[in-house]
Amino acid sequence: MQRKHLSLIAPLLFLTTVVAQAAAPPLTPTEIVAQAPASAWQTIPAENLLVMTLSDGRRINIELAPHFAPAHVSNVVRLAQNHAWDRGEIVRSQDNYVAQWKIRDEAAKAPKGFIDHPPAEYDIARANEPFRPLGFTDSYAPEVGFLDGWAVGSDNTHLWPAQCYGMIGVARDVPPDTGNGQELYVVNGEAPRQLDRNLAVIGRVVSGMEILSALPRGKGPLGFYTNPHENIRIQTVRLSADLPPAQQLHIQTLKTNTPTFDAYLAARAARTDPFFVYAAHGVALCNVPIPSREIP
Amino acid sequence: MQRKHLSLIAPLLFLTTVVAQAAAPPLTPTEIVAQAPASAWQTIPAENLLVMTLSDGRRINIELAPHFAPAHVSNVVRLAQNHAWDRGEIVRSQDNYVAQWKIRDEAAKAPKGFIDHPPAEYDIARANEPFRPLGFTDSYAPEVGFLDGWAVGSDNTHLWPAQCYGMIGVARDVPPDTGNGQELYVVNGEAPRQLDRNLAVIGRVVSGMEILSALPRGKGPLGFYTNPHENIRIQTVRLSADLPPAQQLHIQTLKTNTPTFDAYLAARAARTDPFFVYAAHGVALCNVPIPSREIP
Repeated sequence: MQRKHLSLIAPLLFLTTVVAQAAAPPLTPTEIVAQAPASAWQTIPAENLLVMTLSDGRRINIELAPHFAPAHVSNVVRLAQNHAWDRGEIVRSQDNYVAQWKIRDEAAKAPKGFIDHPPAEYDIARANEPFRPLGFTDSYAPEVGFLDGWAVGSDNTHLWPAQCYGMIGVARDVPPDTGNGQELYVVNGEAPRQLDRNLAVIGRVVSGMEILSALPRGKGPLGFYTNPHENIRIQTVRLSADLPPAQQLHIQTLKTNTPTFDAYLAARAARTDPFFVYAAHGVALCNVPIPSREIP
Repeated sequence: MQRKHLSLIAPLLFLTTVVAQAAAPPLTPTEIVAQAPASAWQTIPAENLLVMTLSDGRRINIELAPHFAPAHVSNVVRLAQNHAWDRGEIVRSQDNYVAQWKIRDEAAKAPKGFIDHPPAEYDIARANEPFRPLGFTDSYAPEVGFLDGWAVGSDNTHLWPAQCYGMIGVARDVPPDTGNGQELYVVNGEAPRQLDRNLAVIGRVVSGMEILSALPRGKGPLGFYTNPHENIRIQTVRLSADLPPAQQLHIQTLKTNTPTFDAYLAARAARTDPFFVYAAHGVALCNVPIPSREIP
């Protein structure tokens, strides 16, 4: 018996054998991304790219989002430049919710320019922003779409980043000004969109998410590890711009205001692969991952 | 500095100290489930409960869904009763999509009563089913809600299980009748609702999902492990009803047509915990996990 799988490959076989004479089938989302022209991609500036290296050498690359949370992002950058994350730890992994990490010593003297109580940077004004609607309904926000490569919720006056898989935010206590960037979390499951507009989003994982998502779940309340030996040690966190030029990373994300993205989104929303016998009526915002790639 | 977290505990402290004299605050979803009366729970029948034990002894408990896919579920039960899953393997873990496992020997003689080509059991008729609407809009289906404890999509005539986190389906090739239950997958990330009505759902993980979600991701295409040594060995899969009475499990799930569930759903949709500074306009179907618990 043939090996069965949720097929991304088999449709091509199917088409070749059964309808070889027909017109070319519509491209799949994966094919559209693979064929995207260089102009459809944008490079993450080195000053917006964090490289987190775990003690076992594995790397997680993070794109910062200063447009949404400038004070929080500034804090995170200052902590990185002060090497405050070195020997920090991942202390929590809660299934289908978040993993969380923190700097080495939260009581240490804050770096110069650190903002102890940043404002609640949970949304931005919508006016004049190049918002690109998703075009489908959403379970949480009056409207959703994309802003310069980021999935966002929106109402008449504001925009805010959506807490999709891989998004990174600033953990806090109950009062909104209690998070300063020393502890961060990443979404590792079904998007907890109830958190939208309730926490500052400082960025997203652009590569290495499969490391954070596969961490063993903590057995304590909220998925905290109960024994310090379970914590995952962070070796370093560096801003790409602070690395020697030869070590700097060049990572690109797909632009969201382009014909390529239009086609990608349309293909995500109406799956025409022969595998699909029933087409959905749309697509959820967080089920349109923004493609990224590393270039030499 | 206090340890910060996405708080489920802190709100209680906050209320105690700041508004101790006020009326009792609305209950959180977690509190509603904790206080649910016995009548709000239903016990999974032993003949609908599969126990999958990995070679390291960890256990994953699976509730079967014969109402949605009777032929496929029948096949899975026959394979379990034939011990065909013993020494099977988990062969795939694709980040933010699915993990997948299969029986030991797909070419082996099928058990008595096995259906080689089950029909495409992707939806059921809606008439006369006790559908309970979610009450909020959905990105995929004209209507969504719950049917006897399961999250479902719906149109005027049909109902189908939604491919939420932890749902288990039958992998197949392109033609719809090519999946027979020898290979199963579980959703391990953002719900791939585009799969709704395209694959037979045979059940869901009711405990042990944190094992399947934390499997190392495979480095091959579609997350398949590239070296057989990476595969995770299954020790046994048994129907709870076939175990000695003392070993049978007693797992309950929260009923979805009860005042308790009404309150749980309302609390998930309108978070009143003091942690939340902004309340969303609703909740997504797959962000309403169906609570379950093991009882002695």
